[in-house]
Amino acid sequence: MRLGVLTGGGDCPGLNAVLRALVRRGVLEFGHEFVGILNGYEGLMEPRLTEPLTLDQVRGILPKGGTILGTSNKANPFKYPERHEGKMHEVDRSDIALKRYRELGLDGLVVIGGDGTLSIGHQLALKGMNVVGCPKTIDNDLSGTDQTFGFDTAAGIITEAIDRLHSTAEAHQRVMIVEIMGRNAGFLTLEGGIAGGADVILIPEIPYKVEAVVKKLKDRAARGSKFSIMAVSEGAYPFGGSVAVLQKAEEIPGRGVVRLGGSGKVLADLLAPHIDAEIRVTVLGHLQRGGTPSAADRVLATMYGAMVLDLIREQRWDHMVCLRDGRLQFTSLAESRKERHVEPHGDKVRMARSMGISFGD
Amino acid sequence: MRLGVLTGGGDCPGLNAVLRALVRRGVLEFGHEFVGILNGYEGLMEPRLTEPLTLDQVRGILPKGGTILGTSNKANPFKYPERHEGKMHEVDRSDIALKRYRELGLDGLVVIGGDGTLSIGHQLALKGMNVVGCPKTIDNDLSGTDQTFGFDTAAGIITEAIDRLHSTAEAHQRVMIVEIMGRNAGFLTLEGGIAGGADVILIPEIPYKVEAVVKKLKDRAARGSKFSIMAVSEGAYPFGGSVAVLQKAEEIPGRGVVRLGGSGKVLADLLAPHIDAEIRVTVLGHLQRGGTPSAADRVLATMYGAMVLDLIREQRWDHMVCLRDGRLQFTSLAESRKERHVEPHGDKVRMARSMGISFGD
Amino acid sequence: MRLGVLTGGGDCPGLNAVLRALVRRGVLEFGHEFVGILNGYEGLMEPRLTEPLTLDQVRGILPKGGTILGTSNKANPFKYPERHEGKMHEVDRSDIALKRYRELGLDGLVVIGGDGTLSIGHQLALKGMNVVGCPKTIDNDLSGTDQTFGFDTAAGIITEAIDRLHSTAEAHQRVMIVEIMGRNAGFLTLEGGIAGGADVILIPEIPYKVEAVVKKLKDRAARGSKFSIMAVSEGAYPFGGSVAVLQKAEEIPGRGVVRLGGSGKVLADLLAPHIDAEIRVTVLGHLQRGGTPSAADRVLATMYGAMVLDLIREQRWDHMVCLRDGRLQFTSLAESRKERHVEPHGDKVRMARSMGISFGD
Amino acid sequence: MRLGVLTGGGDCPGLNAVLRALVRRGVLEFGHEFVGILNGYEGLMEPRLTEPLTLDQVRGILPKGGTILGTSNKANPFKYPERHEGKMHEVDRSDIALKRYRELGLDGLVVIGGDGTLSIGHQLALKGMNVVGCPKTIDNDLSGTDQTFGFDTAAGIITEAIDRLHSTAEAHQRVMIVEIMGRNAGFLTLEGGIAGGADVILIPEIPYKVEAVVKKLKDRAARGSKFSIMAVSEGAYPFGGSVAVLQKAEEIPGRGVVRLGGSGKVLADLLAPHIDAEIRVTVLGHLQRGGTPSAADRVLATMYGAMVLDLIREQRWDHMVCLRDGRLQFTSLAESRKERHVEPHGDKVRMARSMGISFGD
Repeated sequence: MRLGVLTGGGDCPGLNAVLRALVRRGVLEFGHEFVGILNGYEGLMEPRLTEPLTLDQVRGILPKGGTILGTSNKANPFKYPERHEGKMHEVDRSDIALKRYRELGLDGLVVIGGDGTLSIGHQLALKGMNVVGCPKTIDNDLSGTDQTFGFDTAAGIITEAIDRLHSTAEAHQRVMIVEIMGRNAGFLTLEGGIAGGADVILIPEIPYKVEAVVKKLKDRAARGSKFSIMAVSEGAYPFGGSVAVLQKAEEIPGRGVVRLGGSGKVLADLLAPHIDAEIRVTVLGHLQRGGTPSAADRVLATMYGAMVLDLIREQRWDHMVCLRDGRLQFTSLAESRKERHVEPHGDKVRMARSMGISFGD
Repeated sequence: MRLGVLTGGGDCPGLNAVLRALVRRGVLEFGHEFVGILNGYEGLMEPRLTEPLTLDQVRGILPKGGTILGTSNKANPFKYPERHEGKMHEVDRSDIALKRYRELGLDGLVVIGGDGTLSIGHQLALKGMNVVGCPKTIDNDLSGTDQTFGFDTAAGIITEAIDRLHSTAEAHQRVMIVEIMGRNAGFLTLEGGIAGGADVILIPEIPYKVEAVVKKLKDRAARGSKFSIMAVSEGAYPFGGSVAVLQKAEEIPGRGVVRLGGSGKVLADLLAPHIDAEIRVTVLGHLQRGGTPSAADRVLATMYGAMVLDLIREQRWDHMVCLRDGRLQFTSLAESRKERHVEPHGDKVRMARSMGISFGD
Repeated sequence: MRLGVLTGGGDCPGLNAVLRALVRRGVLEFGHEFVGILNGYEGLMEPRLTEPLTLDQVRGILPKGGTILGTSNKANPFKYPERHEGKMHEVDRSDIALKRYRELGLDGLVVIGGDGTLSIGHQLALKGMNVVGCPKTIDNDLSGTDQTFGFDTAAGIITEAIDRLHSTAEAHQRVMIVEIMGRNAGFLTLEGGIAGGADVILIPEIPYKVEAVVKKLKDRAARGSKFSIMAVSEGAYPFGGSVAVLQKAEEIPGRGVVRLGGSGKVLADLLAPHIDAEIRVTVLGHLQRGGTPSAADRVLATMYGAMVLDLIREQRWDHMVCLRDGRLQFTSLAESRKERHVEPHGDKVRMARSMGISFGD
Repeated sequence: MRLGVLTGGGDCPGLNAVLRALVRRGVLEFGHEFVGILNGYEGLMEPRLTEPLTLDQVRGILPKGGTILGTSNKANPFKYPERHEGKMHEVDRSDIALKRYRELGLDGLVVIGGDGTLSIGHQLALKGMNVVGCPKTIDNDLSGTDQTFGFDTAAGIITEAIDRLHSTAEAHQRVMIVEIMGRNAGFLTLEGGIAGGADVILIPEIPYKVEAVVKKLKDRAARGSKFSIMAVSEGAYPFGGSVAVLQKAEEIPGRGVVRLGGSGKVLADLLAPHIDAEIRVTVLGHLQRGGTPSAADRVLATMYGAMVLDLIREQRWDHMVCLRDGRLQFTSLAESRKERHVEPHGDKVRMARSMGISFGD
């Protein structure tokens, strides 16, 4: 078989491990031929953006972050950006994708990505392509699977960062706020917060009250703890506060647009009037998704990549591999569209609370 | 309640995280008082080897390897070493343990350790102590639980080591053998081997043949791969070979006992006559169990430590916490005595094989 | 002798290594007694902020970031903040420092810190205290010494961060800007930029022109390099641009003070109109000064800490230890007040340019 | 100009950084053309072992360990191994090297390596080749230069390893011995030992006495320190002991050659009869030379690589770049043949002793 492969959405440690396992098993066990489609779905729309994906090209890429195929989180064939009369429009150009799929002589297409990438894969499957998927997100917020690769690596980077901030927090008796990725889900913040020994963990699933956070900090100070570490999700904003307002960017005459800051900055501004200690915000940003994948992520990504061939052998199109209850399984691509969230009354939150960690509620 | 706590067996990243979670939740939520029992069961036998375990003492220990209570893998109250007439004997002194438990005024005893430590805990429970357990082993070979803390950290260290050896292997076109811990189970070798991109993985569960390994190395050389990485469990010896002989230490007149080497050395000696390339052996040894725990291990250890208090509240003595199907649960202490092994036909081995990794069989 | 010790200014990896070496050699070789003065000079002004500094307290602190004595970059005895009639004033209270120095029965005072801390030490020496110093700054901008501990650790963290950003930059074909510490000196940016393989390095010592940076990025794109990494010092602003304006914080009615961003943000805003690629800014901030010190910094800090005792033995007050031409030496405390800067025509800049790195000039 | 490049001797972190800087500056500033000569001098002797070395090939290699050119520590053109009548002989085949140098149309040859590689380069220069050198050794034992790249990375790995062993040593109250590379020089052991907080440091430059080591361990135990960390150079053997005997491999009938172990094993055997505590040996081996180079090594290697072009421009053949008194300089290739050693009465040893570290003398 001749199989196209693309990686879409934000880059994520483990993507190269998936590609390596896919190509190695595909070539060695099944004799498949692979076509690398570059820059996510953009490579399916534009000629020239493909290249052969051979054993040679996947050699030595296991420890490498990023993706050798490139990625993009913009090119959606169903909402393809085109310029008409000086303005950008989003046009359904999925027919082009289908046409190129046939021109490339593909028997199937492997799409590796998050909810966006997988959803588009599902739509392309409905149009007749043989699509199989592999889930990817450092945020771990895909409902179709219990665990995604990239999450463990990101949690490790966050934990190491919090360890470092501890030194400074303690030496200077400061309140350190760490703003952590995760979109609308608090998985990374909860994991990194517990692992880093944070005193306060604020996640989107548990709206926080500023007074409750202030109280926690004052209680700590009263008991002699002169510093505090707070882990806050990029999507966590205080209860009752209008996120729309808080996140808003403002136009300042003569200076262009000024962004009022992410959730960490907002929290610092809200706490500052009530707290004596100095407050510092660190936004981890892109550091969380780069670099060499952890051992666990390499293994999970490798399993996923090799397992995709089972789906292809069984012609189980419009499906993706997943991990459920500790076992490699598969599920419908449509499944990927539902978001997964931290369970506010689950074991992790309950145990964290019991140890004295505040969720600001 | 007044609770004794001890850590037994080999040290393991995450032990301090268990102690921290246990004491924090115990004090903050239940108002318990903790007594630290030093150096494993030795502290239960000898006076003076105890100290109060308070919130102050567990502050800042989350990222620390080892155990602040010390450990020992020798002191078993049921087989306590005593000297009689110039010779060492193992004597049942469990009555002393019971007596000291009472003298210390304990309402319960938390034992954190591997199969040995947990088994002794079970026996003490049968004698009337209120014992609860928390499983620990970097080897992941406890049958009562799907995952133990320490394993993820060790797998990460192994993977980083293999990454480093890759540079040298490639530059010098060598065969590099890495000997990996795990006793009679191949979990660490399989995990580290896949994550590190090993070409050959040898584990105790799949006895290997020297010819099969030689063939693999020659096939690689024939295809232009001038170096190879081999991950071998400390417990993996060739099929048909007498382990007893291979592992044997010999007495050399005038030079004392000479150890003939572990599984890595044995493998190198067996391959040398058949292979042109230079062979180098690296024994990771104690590096695998030291240092700061990974994020995942800190979280798992923290959950275990906090969860132990649920067992105590419910007076579920003679039980231990565990993780099954991704959920925190509990199981009988007796359960810990069964060893867990890599499933030779399971998903991981199957996928690894499909990618061209040889298991030497 | 009875010696006071304090750490002042921003925290820095290696401070604990200095304290450990100082106390170990002081006690073991000379039989000195040490008094820890907490939170920098604040501890010299306020009663209760001292504690004995013994062998026990310096045990195990070698790998720890921060400082076990705490630090502060605010308390200057010569400009001590006091509240009069509702307003804060800075008052010369060095007499109090001198008085407490005598009350504590000190024969000497060891001050470990950057230019601020060392300058104050010099002024106190002029007032009659027996002061010796140890230089400290991650920025490496002290003129009295060729190398300060903390710098190597920070450079390592920066390099690792740039490595991580490479994955994302390449996968998404983005321009990544990394804002790096260093106050008015570009040492950290130059070191981290070269080590991380940055394409553009912008430092305060070489004012940059936006057009030159734009040209470099366009040249790279024209040659097929679709991503770029830029390392920019927190103190680097474009030539001709008014830093005062660019750095200014603005008051927005009803929203308090809004900071317009550091040098990285300013650079991104200036480039955005001219560049097609997405631009992302990462501010490393406090991550650069936390965590375990590198091997080189531990050794340098240890040498400094032990060497301080040579100064004390020789009663060479008002001096500090330093490293010059690769040898441990000493210099006058007054020396510390001059800033050191990257030599714009030195070897490192010249070699970096020759390899195609742009400095934006 | 058309320049050949080879890397010889043991692999070393930073070799790729040298190659990258050399090729980038060579191509961009001077328009040189480079020929990669594979596997050290072997590539100069055998046809087919060359390949063009272009900007494309040095892209992205900065963080990679090893060398993209491959290396060898066996092929010496002046003592080339050849088989005559069933036996291996070493024959002077430098004429072949010279002939191939001319056939390849080279205007110069850059040799990157340790004393062996540089010495051969010097001999080839005497025969008329235009040779320039770049020093390389993780051991830091080259007399021509104050610092070699690779050393800092190796010291970092050693320090991290000792940190890990601390956890285990403390938890189990053991004596941990770490055997460290360095051939006949103790630089790595001294640096790693100080940075890792070792209690005993044994180096070849200071022959040790077993009784002195035993005394140190007993003193520590007497003062309540129940564990000890010992850093021992691979070349450090006890005073008076015959190294020849101690290192000897023995033939055991039916079992082939049995190596009696390196310096760590020898030390353990010598201590065992005198010490109660368990002793464990860890041999770091090849882990010390693999993996990504440290920031400092990347910068030093980059400076060296770019600086080589200065030598070539000035036609300063038979010379190599070096670092002296903190400045990039050059020196004669002949210089490389002298070994550098730890100064037994230098600052580092003196300060280490003053802090209570024993050198076993």
